Amino acid sequence: MLSKEDNKLLTETDKGTPMGELFRRYWVPALLSEELPAPDCQPVRVTLLGEKLIAFRDTNNQVGLLDEFCPHRRASLFFGRNEEGGLRCVYHGWKFDACGKCVDMPSEPPESNFKSKVSIKSYPCREFGGIVWTYMGPENEMPELPVFEFTLVPESHRFFSRRIQESNYFQGIEGGIDSSHISFLHRRVHDNPTPTQKAVENGAPKFEVGKTDYGLLIGARRETKDENFYWRITQYVMPWYALIPPTTNQSQLRTGHAWVPMDNENCWHWSFSWIPEAPISEPMRENMRAGRHELHTELIPGTLRPVQNKDNDYLIDRELQRSKKNYSGIRGIGMQDAAVQESAGVIVDRSTEKLGTSDAAIIVARRVMINAAKGLEKGEAPPGLDVEKIKVRAASIMLSKDVPFQEGAAELMKLRESDFVYSS
Amino acid sequence: MLSKEDNKLLTETDKGTPMGELFRRYWVPALLSEELPAPDCQPVRVTLLGEKLIAFRDTNNQVGLLDEFCPHRRASLFFGRNEEGGLRCVYHGWKFDACGKCVDMPSEPPESNFKSKVSIKSYPCREFGGIVWTYMGPENEMPELPVFEFTLVPESHRFFSRRIQESNYFQGIEGGIDSSHISFLHRRVHDNPTPTQKAVENGAPKFEVGKTDYGLLIGARRETKDENFYWRITQYVMPWYALIPPTTNQSQLRTGHAWVPMDNENCWHWSFSWIPEAPISEPMRENMRAGRHELHTELIPGTLRPVQNKDNDYLIDRELQRSKKNYSGIRGIGMQDAAVQESAGVIVDRSTEKLGTSDAAIIVARRVMINAAKGLEKGEAPPGLDVEKIKVRAASIMLSKDVPFQEGAAELMKLRESDFVYSS
Amino acid sequence: MLSKEDNKLLTETDKGTPMGELFRRYWVPALLSEELPAPDCQPVRVTLLGEKLIAFRDTNNQVGLLDEFCPHRRASLFFGRNEEGGLRCVYHGWKFDACGKCVDMPSEPPESNFKSKVSIKSYPCREFGGIVWTYMGPENEMPELPVFEFTLVPESHRFFSRRIQESNYFQGIEGGIDSSHISFLHRRVHDNPTPTQKAVENGAPKFEVGKTDYGLLIGARRETKDENFYWRITQYVMPWYALIPPTTNQSQLRTGHAWVPMDNENCWHWSFSWIPEAPISEPMRENMRAGRHELHTELIPGTLRPVQNKDNDYLIDRELQRSKKNYSGIRGIGMQDAAVQESAGVIVDRSTEKLGTSDAAIIVARRVMINAAKGLEKGEAPPGLDVEKIKVRAASIMLSKDVPFQEGAAELMKLRESDFVYSS
Repeated sequence: MLSKEDNKLLTETDKGTPMGELFRRYWVPALLSEELPAPDCQPVRVTLLGEKLIAFRDTNNQVGLLDEFCPHRRASLFFGRNEEGGLRCVYHGWKFDACGKCVDMPSEPPESNFKSKVSIKSYPCREFGGIVWTYMGPENEMPELPVFEFTLVPESHRFFSRRIQESNYFQGIEGGIDSSHISFLHRRVHDNPTPTQKAVENGAPKFEVGKTDYGLLIGARRETKDENFYWRITQYVMPWYALIPPTTNQSQLRTGHAWVPMDNENCWHWSFSWIPEAPISEPMRENMRAGRHELHTELIPGTLRPVQNKDNDYLIDRELQRSKKNYSGIRGIGMQDAAVQESAGVIVDRSTEKLGTSDAAIIVARRVMINAAKGLEKGEAPPGLDVEKIKVRAASIMLSKDVPFQEGAAELMKLRESDFVYSS
Repeated sequence: MLSKEDNKLLTETDKGTPMGELFRRYWVPALLSEELPAPDCQPVRVTLLGEKLIAFRDTNNQVGLLDEFCPHRRASLFFGRNEEGGLRCVYHGWKFDACGKCVDMPSEPPESNFKSKVSIKSYPCREFGGIVWTYMGPENEMPELPVFEFTLVPESHRFFSRRIQESNYFQGIEGGIDSSHISFLHRRVHDNPTPTQKAVENGAPKFEVGKTDYGLLIGARRETKDENFYWRITQYVMPWYALIPPTTNQSQLRTGHAWVPMDNENCWHWSFSWIPEAPISEPMRENMRAGRHELHTELIPGTLRPVQNKDNDYLIDRELQRSKKNYSGIRGIGMQDAAVQESAGVIVDRSTEKLGTSDAAIIVARRVMINAAKGLEKGEAPPGLDVEKIKVRAASIMLSKDVPFQEGAAELMKLRESDFVYSS
Repeated sequence: MLSKEDNKLLTETDKGTPMGELFRRYWVPALLSEELPAPDCQPVRVTLLGEKLIAFRDTNNQVGLLDEFCPHRRASLFFGRNEEGGLRCVYHGWKFDACGKCVDMPSEPPESNFKSKVSIKSYPCREFGGIVWTYMGPENEMPELPVFEFTLVPESHRFFSRRIQESNYFQGIEGGIDSSHISFLHRRVHDNPTPTQKAVENGAPKFEVGKTDYGLLIGARRETKDENFYWRITQYVMPWYALIPPTTNQSQLRTGHAWVPMDNENCWHWSFSWIPEAPISEPMRENMRAGRHELHTELIPGTLRPVQNKDNDYLIDRELQRSKKNYSGIRGIGMQDAAVQESAGVIVDRSTEKLGTSDAAIIVARRVMINAAKGLEKGEAPPGLDVEKIKVRAASIMLSKDVPFQEGAAELMKLRESDFVYSS
């Protein structure tokens, strides 16, 4: 449960709001590099933290992220000509470079030098790990670019996608750090379950949630048939990342997510899939591309909205639900999450919920976020900006009951950057 | 004409409003029994009086009507698993029975006993006459279930449907008790009109409107070629029922309606068709099912919205209108009503209308409704809760001019429950 | 740049607003005469200045423009029967003539004479030049009907269309008097450009903007290869007309526009095409009718919304844009304008724009409009109501640099009504 005031603070991220200002201190994943496939390709609309922006890749391969609207008479630069080192408004030919500088103003006499007095809002962009990152905060506060395992692996080892989620970002985060719901929403029936699969059927894990320099370390343990605990360890990295434990640590494919506010009522749901040690096979990649993967879902052509969405009840199949092969009747883990998270309303009213012990991580995460936002207002530094500190991994492991997971999984949870050759 | 204040009082029915509190003292027709065709079938969304609810039929055939949103983290129970005596949220497996009791909470350790502290808002349901009725008011004020002729006849003798009307409920009621508009909106051309048909062409009936224990008794008389008056007698039963007079009392098929607020801007339009003495023939029933009947219209598959709707101007056919075979050019009495009622705006501004003598029933009905709502606030009992008193019928009859309709039609207007074997 | 207050004053046109009251002093082009093709044809919805209205042509060929909603119980007269000298509401048969008088009220007893106490809001209409004009202001302030060249030419010489523009009207006007943007938004590549075509490539014309009795006389001059200036002279006629200069004055086809507020967030975009001296050829007229012309665009059947619209990014073709054969990649001058004007938002926030010298006409036009609205509040007469004064023409001409355009183009800019036989 959260007071209406705290819920407002947690969920509103426009410029000037406490959470909006906090988020503007971090690098923001804005879009996939491949969404701007070549120099001078067509621009892409990106709304971030309530700001309507246009991304483009200029002739020199530099990515710019500008205010969507030309400062002259506010026509959308989406219709702009991307050519010769800048994006040109088609209304009167004003042209801006990737830094927002007005580099041509052919509708004004050259002698007026009006051009030098005009610029457009722009945010610095960096490309790393297949992602265009931007920084929307005060210039002198720009931190280092964050480093995740998924941005370190070679391009061949990873597949990322982003899509619109029609809810406030925090509903996504709550699902991401909630190890309990996998026993229900994502339950599968296994004919011959492994001990791990068997353990996951226990929907009432005990949580140990620790605040860290970078966010939260969340251990969820389940009883097994023998002496061990089965531990699922989720990493929550400020301000919106969740590194999801694989079912077993032998699983090759790993998963992370980010939920980046588009505006208060929608967010960008990012799914990061990667294999640390090996390339993603072509059939698997093809499945991901086609939207037939658990996390990478099919999108309505020309949009970033899933084909399964709230207007069609996520194409729920009641026969499939009844069969118990699929707990919800909704296809795909990603769409199962979307269904429950979006169905609670675009901004869930947390003053009326009833939280239990299995919501421990969520309760702490809300507090961490709210405290960080309030702390920033009081002049405290935002947590999680030290790149060295966020080099962590999720893990799952069977451990003897007398071994604390922080110790038993210590090695698994370390990210050694030296293991990777930078991918870009 | 109604003041803006009275119009607001008349049209707003959310919890806490005067009219909303009044309506919560009556049993509400929530959905058709057949919409929940079998135990453990899929749940159905029903919004009533501004409250989003989920109806389901449990393993033991009991119908439950719960808050749509799980009290835990507010996921919609529409996606829930309906199984083994309750509806289970797919997010974390919390399960509620038809009374709203939490009967399973597998995401929490059993020892916490959190389950016993949690329940979900639920409304008692009863099935009678093919309808699921619910009661949304204070427990100790629950009245008896209402009894109408259409709920008494055997299943074979009746056909009911409900659909969304995209207007406030009271615009529907106004049409339902307005005997005058049938001479226009629903006018038909008859090659050899009967005396009754001839009489109905007179669009200026004289109204006699009497307040009763249960609502209003509305007599509308028209001159005929001879000594008689042709009387059409509508029964308005609190809080939202209209029993419509048949064209002649020899007509076998009878009609009633209810307009139940969904929210302030939409209502559930119910159409009740029945033949007191005989089964509905299979061809007629098939027409009704297929939406080819005057009152039971075709719906957009998967929805309760008519195929003819305001977005397509109810598929008005101007040639048909010009031909005079159909006064409005709109097919179906139900859709003719929807067109004029919805076209006035979702909540008609009654401060700007101009009422005549033919609006007598409407004027009194508004006053009855407003007084009942205000009366309840002052502690007065709502009218029409005495089941014995609502056992009435609509009628149409030719009567000598010197016979008051209350006398001449007295027998026709009585509903004798003993004539029927209870149908469920 | 405009203050938020002035922007509000400029853009809001509902009854009672300063600009709304100003506009109600002028004749308003409401619809095309051909939209009401015959006596007793079906009525047409027209929203003007925030008022929902219904136009119909009565049995005697007179056009009426009434409140959309029947004064009785507010049903829409769109569904009305248009017959025998009036429009009849299908709900209860109340019938109104083109002047708004209630001429039949069959739902009331004749003796009540209620009919004589009821009328419906109606606005006087006149047909001239293929257009139905209406006047929505105080009766005693009705001016003469305006006279434009396009309303004087024979029917064979003209083609008009109207469509919805999904923005405030003033964004349309700003585009219409903005001679600079044609060098960009509407740029074409010519293999062998004429001197005029060459001149138009100069996107930084010098503006001379003069206030006149009727609005603004806007001269935009461009340098040419030789001694001359190439002048494009736009006429802005109060309150919403722009007469567009042809590329050369030898062009036969001439163009004018009007942007008439529908409500604050939408307007009617009128395009007037005509050839003063000759009929429009059948192939050209066929292109216009089919929506394949630069200005007369294809509409979604049954609506006045363009097929190219903001929901599909005006069907922008990025390959075409890249080819430079079409600067924006959007087909049709009209749709190019719509794209930039609508993309700035339904009501552009003029407090954040950056205007240059090429925006001179726009700056003056805003001031003229605002002053006229404020002037009316102080009792001053609206400008441009003297029909003799608005008899002007747009022009384009090459002039020696030492000749003021007001002199050099004086003859071209005069409209001699005596040249025309009235067309209706």
